Formats: sequence, C-alpha cells, structure tokens
Amino acid sequence: MRQQSARTGALVLCILSYLLVGAAVFDALESEAESGRKRLLAQKRAELRRKYGFSAEDDRELERLALQAEPHRAGRQWKFAGSFYFAITVITTIGYGHAAPGTDLGKVFCMFYALLGIPLTLVTFQSLGERLNALVRRLLLAAKRCLGLRRPRVSTENMVLAGLLVCAATLALGAAAFAHFEGWTFFHAYYYCFITLTTIGFGDFVALQSDEALQRKPPYVAFSFLYILLGLTVIGAFLNLVVLRFLAASTDAPGRAARRAGPLRLGAPESRGPSWARPGNPPSVSYRIHQLEVWARDNLGFSPPASPGAVGGGRAGRPPARRKSI
Amino acid sequence: MRQQSARTGALVLCILSYLLVGAAVFDALESEAESGRKRLLAQKRAELRRKYGFSAEDDRELERLALQAEPHRAGRQWKFAGSFYFAITVITTIGYGHAAPGTDLGKVFCMFYALLGIPLTLVTFQSLGERLNALVRRLLLAAKRCLGLRRPRVSTENMVLAGLLVCAATLALGAAAFAHFEGWTFFHAYYYCFITLTTIGFGDFVALQSDEALQRKPPYVAFSFLYILLGLTVIGAFLNLVVLRFLAASTDAPGRAARRAGPLRLGAPESRGPSWARPGNPPSVSYRIHQLEVWARDNLGFSPPASPGAVGGGRAGRPPARRKSI
Repeated sequence: MRQQSARTGALVLCILSYLLVGAAVFDALESEAESGRKRLLAQKRAELRRKYGFSAEDDRELERLALQAEPHRAGRQWKFAGSFYFAITVITTIGYGHAAPGTDLGKVFCMFYALLGIPLTLVTFQSLGERLNALVRRLLLAAKRCLGLRRPRVSTENMVLAGLLVCAATLALGAAAFAHFEGWTFFHAYYYCFITLTTIGFGDFVALQSDEALQRKPPYVAFSFLYILLGLTVIGAFLNLVVLRFLAASTDAPGRAARRAGPLRLGAPESRGPSWARPGNPPSVSYRIHQLEVWARDNLGFSPPASPGAVGGGRAGRPPARRKSI
Repeated sequence: MRQQSARTGALVLCILSYLLVGAAVFDALESEAESGRKRLLAQKRAELRRKYGFSAEDDRELERLALQAEPHRAGRQWKFAGSFYFAITVITTIGYGHAAPGTDLGKVFCMFYALLGIPLTLVTFQSLGERLNALVRRLLLAAKRCLGLRRPRVSTENMVLAGLLVCAATLALGAAAFAHFEGWTFFHAYYYCFITLTTIGFGDFVALQSDEALQRKPPYVAFSFLYILLGLTVIGAFLNLVVLRFLAASTDAPGRAARRAGPLRLGAPESRGPSWARPGNPPSVSYRIHQLEVWARDNLGFSPPASPGAVGGGRAGRPPARRKSI
C-alpha cells in the first residue's frame, strides 16, 4: 500500500513538472507569434472598419454572425453523415467541436450517449487492439521461422518496435490521403492525424469540412470514418501493449486480502514495471503459491494443504510488498 | 483465442450499431434547428451587407478576420497561464481547441509533448484513481463498523454506488462554480464539466475565456486547473473500478503459453466479466495451480513437483478456454 502511495505521489510530481515545462516551452514558442498575429488582425479590421464606417454595435454583430456562420459554411453538419461523424467524435472523445449540439435536448442526449458510449468504445478498441497484437505476434513468429531461426521467440522489444512502425505508417498514410483530399500540406495533414488519433481533437484541422464533402463525397466520407476507427485501433493496440500493464487496478477482494497484494498479482517493484516481462528475473513459484493461499483463505474460506516448495518458509506475515500494476 | 475473437467481433458490431443509432438521433434533434439558425444568420448578414454595401471579397475577408480574432478576444492565450492551460488540454486529451499552436514549431513540439505526456497522464490518473478507491473503501468499511455491523464487507456494488455519487457530486459542484464565475446557466456549466471530464472537450464552452481571466484572476485560474485535474482523478477512479477489468490485455509470454491463457489469468467467460468478483463462483484452486505449472514450464524451464489438489486430474492438454480480460 505504502509503495503504491509513493508511486502515485511520484507520478503526480512528474505530471506537475511536465505541465510546468510544457507551459514554459509553449509560451516561448507561441507568445510572440500571437502578439504579431493580434496586431496584424487589429490593423486589417481597423482598415475595413474605416472603409465602411461600421458602428461599434454593428462591428460586434458582424463578428458574432461570422463566428456563428462558421459551421454552416462547412456544409450541413447534422444530416445523417454529419451526425455519424459527430457521434464518432463523441464516443471516441476526439471532440473536434466543429459541430456541437445547439439545442439543449441535443446536449442532454449527447451526455447520455457519451456515458454509455465511451466505456463501450474503450473496451472495444482495447479488445480489437489485443487481437491486432496477437496477429502481429503470429506474423512475426512466422517471419522468424521463415528466416530459419530454430527456436523463434517474439520478445516484448520486437512487439514494441513493430507497434511503433505500424503507428508511424498509419499516420503517414493518413497524412498523405488527407493532404491530397483536403489540400493541406503533408505536415499539417500529419498533425491532423496525430491530434485525431490521440483523441485530443483540437478542431483546428477537421476533415470533411470543405466542398460540402459530407453530402457530396460519400467514398471520401467512408474513408475518413474508417481511417479514424482503424487508426484508433492501431493506437489502442500500441497502448494495450505498452501502457495497460502499468495501470494500477483497484483490488476487488475485500478486507485483508485487499490490503495485501490483491488477487494474484505478479510481484514487481512498481517503479520498474513488470519484472516478469524481463528474462532472468521471474517472481518465485513459492511466492505465487503463497499468494494463492492468501486468496484462497480470504475468498474460499479455507487453507489449501501445504504445497511443495517454500510456501511460508521464512515468509511470516505480509508477503514482500511487490505488486505488478495491471 | 476463438472466444476472444468472438468477443471482439461482438463489440465491434455493438459499436457500429451504437454509432448508427446515435447518428439518427442527433440528426433528428439538431438538423431542423440547424436549418433554422442558418436561415436566420443568412438573413442578418444580408441585412448588414445591404446596409454597408460590402464587396464580396471584403465580406469574405471580414469573416476570415472575425474567425481569426476569436482566440485573441478571449485574452492572451500563450502567456504562462494560458500555456499551462493549453498543456493540460494536450496531455489529458481534452483538446478544447480554444487555442492551438499557430507556429509549425509549436505544432511539432505539441506532438512530442503529447507522445510522452499522454501515457504518463493515463498512468498517473489511474494510479491516483486506484488510491482514491482504496481510500473510499476504507471509509465505507469504517462507516459500516460504526453502524455496528459485525462482519463489515465492502462489496463491488457498494463501491460502484459510491463512485457514481462522487462523480455526480463532482459534476454538480463544478457546474455551480462555473455557472457563477462564467455567467453560464447551471445546465450549460454542467454540460461543460461533463464534456471536459470525459475529455471530449468540444470547445463550445471553455472556462477562463472571458474578462481576460487568465491574466487577471489567478485564484479562479488555479481553481479551474485544480478542478480539471481532480475531476479527472474522480472519473479515472470510477473507470478504474468499473472498466479497467474489462480491458483485454495482450499476453506477454512467448509461444505456447501465449496461445493458452497467458501468465496467471483468472479464468472467466469473457462475456460475463470477472467471475471471481462474484461470490459463489470462484475459479478452482486446482485450475490456478495448473496455470502456475504451465507458466513455470514455459518461463522457468521446469515442472514443479505435483501439487496437492486436482492438478492435471482429468485435465489433459489445454486448460478450459476461460480467460479473464484484465
């Protein structure tokens, strides 16, 4: 428990430092450009205002109307295709905001829709990701056999490298496609794909918003939807491989077992990640059996007969405080 | 494996149906209102255009300038406070888009920042969430003891209910606060908190964007940041409790062990969720020990001596294909 709290505290400090550093860098990169843009904009707007002689009130009204007109200029956002697009941005939590419910009823439905849809989507993409990883593992194994290796093994490192390559390829392919269809530069299209597939979804670049694509270009619409869903699968697979194991699961076992290591956790010093993934340092069999006995005692209400191996030998009271964060 | 693929297939069909239903409902709720707003906007803009006699080119220029001016009107977005706010929206994947990097270098840094920051944030919030769940469990246990229960137990149902209440309270408190500070209705503030804490982050409502709050109201700025981070902890805790167990983890064990159940998985029919969480249906101890032997054989290179219980008794070849999705 204490280790888990220490781990948590360390992570929190990490995040806060990360935010401070990020803030400083973004400030340095963007602040001056922001001032420049602001000055230029004010200049141009002043020119137009002088040219036409707007009243202050009309000036504000023009601005307001222009802002409200933006989604409309991109085409109908709430026909079926647009609504499907919007529904994707909700349950994947991308949330571009290119369109957002205007009616209060729409907002209410949106919240309930997200409430059920987001967990469903999380589970689905992790499930798909796990299947993708299994497929990649099989392919790598087959490839190694073809290369004539006698006892082919697919290590975690192999999988992570493969994962990185697939992610990079997915982003690059998407970038090429959207650069072509949207008329963006390759860099901006790559940025768009990255911001989309990480589900950040700023909305500064949004596909399907020019030339009324949602209504007029069904194949491109289908491609965009498929790209987002498949791309999220690829990213989900990578996260599943690399991050999921570090997520600390709440124990479900009540009382004493919960204060120990919870049901059948693979012990590893938390700060180092799962040691069972590293060859040469597996947790002992006797520790496993000890955990089993603890679990059996707390959940089945009995103590299994003494197992072979060093169960309990030298291990009085608490097992060593090693936990794998699932 | 086949069960896992079937599970995945079922989830995918589920998601597709969910998207179709959502699209239909959003279409029904928003489409007509959209037409109405569009007509009204066009009318007003036509009036103003007639009043001042814009050329078509100047009309488009006015629109463009108004759109670009929007973030500036909300105050300086890239000073330290604004950059910190932005950094939060990146690593939490909220991504309002109220501000987005204007420079290409800013975009590049943003991508690298997200690449490291997002997994770090995921792990941190899950870790915090697990600690919060542990605390809530202890409090509930203490409360039950105070109520005089002899053998107090905190069930999963207790925890889920407590989680729901804490989430609802968090949203309501945030709604009250932002309604007050931003001048929104309670409903719109609630909607803002919900969209923020689910990390959807449309950007239709964004705090700290009026009255140059980022520069002029440090206490309110601090409150907003804290609210987002603590709120995400609460949501993370709830997800940790309810969803994490359903996330299918990729197995790490190579070869044969990978095709079975992977290291020490608690067996449960996947579609039903973890049966070990339900009293009266724990997996057998003999099955556990069998899994242990399989793991030991594949990872340690030896077979532990025969354990007591029904190890191998009646279980030739593959263990029953039951897997708990972690």
